[in-house]
Amino acid sequence: MRIVITGGAGFLGLRLARALLARGTLTDARGATRTVRELVLLDIVAPPDLGDARVRPQAGDLADPAVIERAVKRDTDTVFHLAAVVSGQAEADFDAGMRVNLDATRALLERCRKLDAPPKFVFTSSLAVFGGPLPDPVPDDAPITPQASYGVQKAIGEQLVYDMTRKGFIDGRSLRLPTVTVRPGKPNKAASSFASGIIREPLAGTDAPCPVAPATRMWVQSPRAVIGNLVIGHEAPAAAFAHTRSINVPGICVAVGEMVAALRRVAGDTVADRVNWQYDPAIDRIVSTWAANFAPRLGPALGMQADADFDGIIRAYIADDMPRA
Amino acid sequence: MRIVITGGAGFLGLRLARALLARGTLTDARGATRTVRELVLLDIVAPPDLGDARVRPQAGDLADPAVIERAVKRDTDTVFHLAAVVSGQAEADFDAGMRVNLDATRALLERCRKLDAPPKFVFTSSLAVFGGPLPDPVPDDAPITPQASYGVQKAIGEQLVYDMTRKGFIDGRSLRLPTVTVRPGKPNKAASSFASGIIREPLAGTDAPCPVAPATRMWVQSPRAVIGNLVIGHEAPAAAFAHTRSINVPGICVAVGEMVAALRRVAGDTVADRVNWQYDPAIDRIVSTWAANFAPRLGPALGMQADADFDGIIRAYIADDMPRA
Repeated sequence: MRIVITGGAGFLGLRLARALLARGTLTDARGATRTVRELVLLDIVAPPDLGDARVRPQAGDLADPAVIERAVKRDTDTVFHLAAVVSGQAEADFDAGMRVNLDATRALLERCRKLDAPPKFVFTSSLAVFGGPLPDPVPDDAPITPQASYGVQKAIGEQLVYDMTRKGFIDGRSLRLPTVTVRPGKPNKAASSFASGIIREPLAGTDAPCPVAPATRMWVQSPRAVIGNLVIGHEAPAAAFAHTRSINVPGICVAVGEMVAALRRVAGDTVADRVNWQYDPAIDRIVSTWAANFAPRLGPALGMQADADFDGIIRAYIADDMPRA
Repeated sequence: MRIVITGGAGFLGLRLARALLARGTLTDARGATRTVRELVLLDIVAPPDLGDARVRPQAGDLADPAVIERAVKRDTDTVFHLAAVVSGQAEADFDAGMRVNLDATRALLERCRKLDAPPKFVFTSSLAVFGGPLPDPVPDDAPITPQASYGVQKAIGEQLVYDMTRKGFIDGRSLRLPTVTVRPGKPNKAASSFASGIIREPLAGTDAPCPVAPATRMWVQSPRAVIGNLVIGHEAPAAAFAHTRSINVPGICVAVGEMVAALRRVAGDTVADRVNWQYDPAIDRIVSTWAANFAPRLGPALGMQADADFDGIIRAYIADDMPRA
């Protein structure tokens, strides 16, 4: 089985790659169990060496069809499309968001039409496709009325994934991920970046700004759980879907103040006191358009799981990703 | 005031042009009443001479940015974007639909970003954005899960119109039109083309095939009412909208069998007996994905109107459009 992961040098891309390599098999679009033989990690920067002969790293601009053609060979069985311009950057630079989140997604889908057989295509969408007045909790069939460019671009991607699936070009699945926290490494331009920063930085001994109010709620999931759910979304049989291919991935609804309280319980006052409440209206405006509480049904029916609580999410970060002193 | 109508050589485009010329004024994006000074009719075929010095006809491919730049001058105040690859054709030729319904729409929107001031942008979307299981009647905030490529492409256009409006690039309005009937002229590749044909052809003395079952219901509106509603959609103040710019345009829900019964009442048995029930699964499959019954609230609140009944729609065709013997 030949697999391509876009955004393959990113945190989630690398983690997914390791999970697939460890797993060793996946179900292809025809329902057959197949051995993972080649795993292409495509990203704008060169992915690191994972020390596994099955991995083929490739650096290149995903918006360039020649790059896509080189990465997605004719016998590709599965594409995990994780690459994206993140929410804060897509809002600040409309054209950059359109180029990657829309144009590159479409170019990738167009390439998939030309393969030897329709591949599975797992598209990482986002809860940011939801916006405006919504029921609380948000049901699976809530209207998609995103209120920022990132969500609009993801919503358009979902439409393309669905229609190309319906046409038989691909076997697509759009997974609307919760905010993934705690991410290791440095802050990025996602409006949700702080949701990792307020845990990661204090644990590393440095102060972290929190740009939203303590009462602001978010729908979150640990990297560990997200990777498990991405694999489940890939493995689900096509018959499990109805008139869309979009899934609200399970998560937990947590107020930002409760995240810091969990940090206090897990790591103590000294650590938790390193969070500085510094309200930033630009960030809060984006985050507050996102729905924070969902009642997913299809995702759990497929076997997708949420973290038990935010304390567990912090402990998972400490166990899996926190740099050792 | 400078206005551009795409699809300006089409039936609705020409009819809209005549209505705007007769009206003489429109409200611009700043709320000012302005005199109609230039009306550009852009279409792939040369629009006919309307005998009005304000009209500037232009033939060209809307997917060509140079054509758009020539048509949409920097001081354009309003764009009515009516051009589209119709539903049946968009389903049969995926690439043609994407090229016009998505790429040309986006190119037109991109051009609007570069004007001297953000123009009003009226996008003719369609009830085809609805599909799959839906409440009956369909409320304004029903989820958008189109089940054919035409509806998908229109749904994507709506997302772009909304986001570019939110960003301040345009003052956009997406009007989801009912099936427009009775259209004069020849059948086209719209899956809904028969809804005009079964009235128009029998009145002209020729037989007409009806490819769907008599019980199949449709949401329809006369050309006369549609033009009125397009103007209302243009004139509505921006403050009348909430977290989308999409409007379900009012119409009436009529079973196809009832359309023929209305023809029988208006024009007699000889005429109505010219309808031949010839089931076509390809057409029926598309038409049956469309919702047929709506409960629009915003449209009527803005002053949009539906026809009183289908008998009136037939009489409007006879009065407005039927060729004289």
